[in-house]
Amino acid sequence: MNARSRSCRRPWGPGFAALSALLATAPAACQAPGQVASPDGRTVVTVETTDGGLFYRIDRDGAPLVLPSRLGFALRGAPDLRDGLSIAGTNRASVDETWEQPWGQVRTVRDHHNELRVAVEETSAPGRRFEVVVRVFDDGVGLRYVVPDQPGLAEVVVDDELTEFAFAENADAWWIPSDRPRKDRSEMLYSRSPVSVLDSVQTPLTLESPSGPVMVVHEAHLVDWPRMFLAGDQIEERTLRAALAPMVDGVKARRATPFETPWRTIQIADRVEDLQPSVLALNLNPPSVLDDTSWIEPMTYVGIWWGMHIGVNSWGSGPIHDATTDNTLRYLDFAADNGVGGVLVEGWNVGWDGDWIANGDVFSFTEAYPDYDLERVAAHARERGVALIAHNETSGGLANYESQMDSAFALYESLGIRAIKSGYVIDTIPGGHSHYSQEMVRHHRRVLETAARHGIMMNVHEPVHDTGERRTYPNMMTREGSRGQEYNAWSGDGGNPPEHETILFFTRLIPGPMDFTPGVLDILRTDPDGRERAFHEPRIRTTVAKQLALYVVLYSPFQMAADLIENYEGHPAFEFIRTVAVDWDSTRVLEGAIGDHVVVARKARDSDEWFVGAITDEQGRTFEVALDFLDADGDYVAEIYADGPGAHWVDAPLELAISERAVDSNTTLSLVLAPGGGQAIRIRPAG
Amino acid sequence: MNARSRSCRRPWGPGFAALSALLATAPAACQAPGQVASPDGRTVVTVETTDGGLFYRIDRDGAPLVLPSRLGFALRGAPDLRDGLSIAGTNRASVDETWEQPWGQVRTVRDHHNELRVAVEETSAPGRRFEVVVRVFDDGVGLRYVVPDQPGLAEVVVDDELTEFAFAENADAWWIPSDRPRKDRSEMLYSRSPVSVLDSVQTPLTLESPSGPVMVVHEAHLVDWPRMFLAGDQIEERTLRAALAPMVDGVKARRATPFETPWRTIQIADRVEDLQPSVLALNLNPPSVLDDTSWIEPMTYVGIWWGMHIGVNSWGSGPIHDATTDNTLRYLDFAADNGVGGVLVEGWNVGWDGDWIANGDVFSFTEAYPDYDLERVAAHARERGVALIAHNETSGGLANYESQMDSAFALYESLGIRAIKSGYVIDTIPGGHSHYSQEMVRHHRRVLETAARHGIMMNVHEPVHDTGERRTYPNMMTREGSRGQEYNAWSGDGGNPPEHETILFFTRLIPGPMDFTPGVLDILRTDPDGRERAFHEPRIRTTVAKQLALYVVLYSPFQMAADLIENYEGHPAFEFIRTVAVDWDSTRVLEGAIGDHVVVARKARDSDEWFVGAITDEQGRTFEVALDFLDADGDYVAEIYADGPGAHWVDAPLELAISERAVDSNTTLSLVLAPGGGQAIRIRPAG
Repeated sequence: MNARSRSCRRPWGPGFAALSALLATAPAACQAPGQVASPDGRTVVTVETTDGGLFYRIDRDGAPLVLPSRLGFALRGAPDLRDGLSIAGTNRASVDETWEQPWGQVRTVRDHHNELRVAVEETSAPGRRFEVVVRVFDDGVGLRYVVPDQPGLAEVVVDDELTEFAFAENADAWWIPSDRPRKDRSEMLYSRSPVSVLDSVQTPLTLESPSGPVMVVHEAHLVDWPRMFLAGDQIEERTLRAALAPMVDGVKARRATPFETPWRTIQIADRVEDLQPSVLALNLNPPSVLDDTSWIEPMTYVGIWWGMHIGVNSWGSGPIHDATTDNTLRYLDFAADNGVGGVLVEGWNVGWDGDWIANGDVFSFTEAYPDYDLERVAAHARERGVALIAHNETSGGLANYESQMDSAFALYESLGIRAIKSGYVIDTIPGGHSHYSQEMVRHHRRVLETAARHGIMMNVHEPVHDTGERRTYPNMMTREGSRGQEYNAWSGDGGNPPEHETILFFTRLIPGPMDFTPGVLDILRTDPDGRERAFHEPRIRTTVAKQLALYVVLYSPFQMAADLIENYEGHPAFEFIRTVAVDWDSTRVLEGAIGDHVVVARKARDSDEWFVGAITDEQGRTFEVALDFLDADGDYVAEIYADGPGAHWVDAPLELAISERAVDSNTTLSLVLAPGGGQAIRIRPAG
Repeated sequence: MNARSRSCRRPWGPGFAALSALLATAPAACQAPGQVASPDGRTVVTVETTDGGLFYRIDRDGAPLVLPSRLGFALRGAPDLRDGLSIAGTNRASVDETWEQPWGQVRTVRDHHNELRVAVEETSAPGRRFEVVVRVFDDGVGLRYVVPDQPGLAEVVVDDELTEFAFAENADAWWIPSDRPRKDRSEMLYSRSPVSVLDSVQTPLTLESPSGPVMVVHEAHLVDWPRMFLAGDQIEERTLRAALAPMVDGVKARRATPFETPWRTIQIADRVEDLQPSVLALNLNPPSVLDDTSWIEPMTYVGIWWGMHIGVNSWGSGPIHDATTDNTLRYLDFAADNGVGGVLVEGWNVGWDGDWIANGDVFSFTEAYPDYDLERVAAHARERGVALIAHNETSGGLANYESQMDSAFALYESLGIRAIKSGYVIDTIPGGHSHYSQEMVRHHRRVLETAARHGIMMNVHEPVHDTGERRTYPNMMTREGSRGQEYNAWSGDGGNPPEHETILFFTRLIPGPMDFTPGVLDILRTDPDGRERAFHEPRIRTTVAKQLALYVVLYSPFQMAADLIENYEGHPAFEFIRTVAVDWDSTRVLEGAIGDHVVVARKARDSDEWFVGAITDEQGRTFEVALDFLDADGDYVAEIYADGPGAHWVDAPLELAISERAVDSNTTLSLVLAPGGGQAIRIRPAG
């Protein structure tokens, strides 16, 4: 039976009515049941039943984009919600509103969508009911399940979410695997494959189609539900299915009714350049629950960090312990003297001296090492107006962290510490549940809420992926969840390849910011033994100019200057890091090709300054960049940090050419990028 | 202990002496033990021991290409040949000779290499000995083990070959997986990943380095040994290790001494365009054992085949049985009338009427279906001078095939049938051994030898991969072993993507020819119900001109015109298929980028004609092709089959523009390829 053939009637129950009340506008008149189009009319989603199964499909410009794809649940201890389903009614709404972000890649966000709510019920006993809610924006689709409170369905135990994505074309996917036997996290290099050969992969999954639009499959508003992966059959099919991160007993989710699932999202764009800045997930998250966000501040930061990764310092106590009082005071003074907003200190707290990996109970989050005077350091930070960033490595000791966090965060609050970098260096959490299971998602939300109560901003490493939480909790600043700079310090594969960040921009960075930690200028770094790195050893595979460009390209509201501060002292490139903005009014992707290059221009928030970042893979490239985004009547000065003559990521990564020139909106700049290079430009009003 | 620190002495034993005698020149004077360079001096291989382990490494232009990589064996029922090893001596040879192929991509092949034989022995009991033989060519390296007959080592049971490939750079690999839980064959679309994330992949494995040369890892002279896969750890390492296809008990190989393993090969080129034509594997195979090769003839062929794949005909008996006497006579007449060399007939023999997959004992290779008069058909083929190609689907029934093959091949010989297309549609062979195990390799060699005795040329589908057998047995014409045209008929992923063949050229086609079966012109094919294919249904994702270009790009000595012959009747594009050569004097890759495009020029053997084939992925491209390869004093006519105005693989694949123009060696042709398109050019002497 097809939804189109049925008449439309009001759905059932108080749960539905309450949810409907959240909508900004009243449901539209009932028409064309089962189908809903984007405001621009290009994208049409249809929900329908076939042989008692529930399916959705997506058409774009009249051609199929997603073929009929199953919806439903496999349940434990109850019949699956899969067969014998019928559509009991539909309901519609439209929203067009603009809201402002407290910080972000763009200041204002337009939420313009049409919504269809489809009431589904079993045609025979037990006659259970649920809803599918579809929101269609010009830039993509969100789809979620709502399971109301109803007789005989007080709780569901979800074995699998049956949501499918049956792509009409065998697009090329940029992917990292999930469910790896070892190191089941997200810090991996990307592969590119046709959808039809994928096994189990992580989202966001970016799909480049040979003939159609580009798509990003992901999720939004992930609360009290496991993270979604995507799984394929690897045998000549274009269908991926939702694969939820499991708990140790194989159960994916346990929920009492009523509940709603995260949104399954498909962002759609004609060109890869149109994927960023991405606001689809933000629009699918609830507005901020924080009344006062004035204490939340994007910033650059330096930190006691890189020395440990390159092996000249240690987290634990001893002769090369890095987090000492004196060293921290030195970092605080450096930050204050250079307008750097914060100082991260890793290894300050007791717990690092044994085998701490996956043994998180060893950590105290309040007790400092004897050579680290927390009170004195915090007082100096307050005095110098620098944000001290506390590091909380949990190593997966969730109970240990949760038992301490309220008092620890209160201590930090009392000391003026308003930011935490947390860490979860584990593959499974205690109990054996997945690092991405419902349990873990719950934990992260508890931490985030507690942090908000104590006025603390979060930067989470080894996190669950970004699903737009920052709209609701604007203290959720940034996170890792991909392969960052530290792999250039020690990775057995030699470090991130030159193309790496050009892929990250179109994959990991789509849903939200990443704490990549750019800005290591000592590229041919000297080891403790005084030896320069050989080419095949772990090292940074970019030029210096590309390290600077990453500040503009890889968005993060906390943006680290990751090198040892002694490598910044007197370095002419540091001037760019000192002056680059971290909060943006608007963002424009000028050029882009996944795995090849990215050119981005961003206007600083509450400022007339613009910044341009351009990066390339191992190929040298030239870009003609028209500055027509500048005010037509403005005169500007461009401070240009370019690859110098002969610069090359292999053997001349330090060649840097810094210049200044007068520019205006009629200027076209020719950006010449070396192999593995980049260019960073600050454009400030003249005079 | 390092090989360089030891004096050089003659190795041991009669086995070694016998093998040495095979070398074309006497061993060079003993010097620089453990190291051997290519004739051009650019590539240097070093074999040495470290802490009792045996390692090789490869440097290119003074920089590391392969870091120290382990050599040895894990054995069953005996200590591993891995530790406590020392180098007992070395021996050298150099070869520079040119030999002629009976057919091929090039007529003459130069074998110019330096060889190092390293004698290895255990320093303590049992004191076993083996050799590592390295041959270094300008275009790559071959490396094999030789295990001599020796006291206490009459047989070895190999659990694993420990050969490693520790790449100095984390290159990008173009790969298909091995060891898949289902469909463990080679008919898959390619992925691209950094080496460091690979799990288990097939060879040939083509590696594009961001900073160095391109490499292809493969093997040569695979006899009585399992096929080699490559396996990685997926965790930030650049080392792949040999992973041999197993027998059901996990044993990889059982061999009596003396024996030698296949060569492990690393082809090396500065540019991808220099990878083809590849002769490394040919040079590492023994010369032909066939005295008379005059009966071996490359050819184009048509066949009773595509109708089954698109569902309008059947292999088995019944109303749509394709392999009838009348239909075959029709195909034979068509071939004879059009200068097409052969006619393949599938479904002629008894066995197709039940569930034959992995149930190969059902097949007879001599008994025809009642509606197929084998004698009459064969007589007509002889009369019309057309080669009848017998189809032998074994479905993995190795014993059934081997028990029949001598008499079947004798029958074919008596009927003038001189070619077989065989098939092995199975994932494991009877007994549970891998489809690529030592047992299977042995089977293929037995079939090939039997065929040679009966004057029969082989075209093997679902084969073990090509390791250069055609040098020794020039009746080993072509094989499948990759995803061919038939996937465009029925594959659930919609068919081969436009980039597919541009990848095949630089991967699957490197070691040898492939029976891809191009030339389907009815691209928007009509189904039995009269309906044109929708875009997301299985269909051919190229233009007509690209189908023609594949005859030049994808080398095969048996080159099928795969469409139903009624689709060729009166089609202007068929003239190119009628006239294209299938045997070549020389081959030049003019342009190439893996996954993007290929432009190839080939000179026909014993002819003054040249052919140019150009193909592209989903991007339209223009190539300027200078015809400076033509004779400087010659006048030629170019017959050009180009994408027509508005041609596009999505919605205008049939647009074809055929033209003729006078050309000479000063001409530059501008080849305009449509998205998903191609161009095919025949250049013949004028007049």
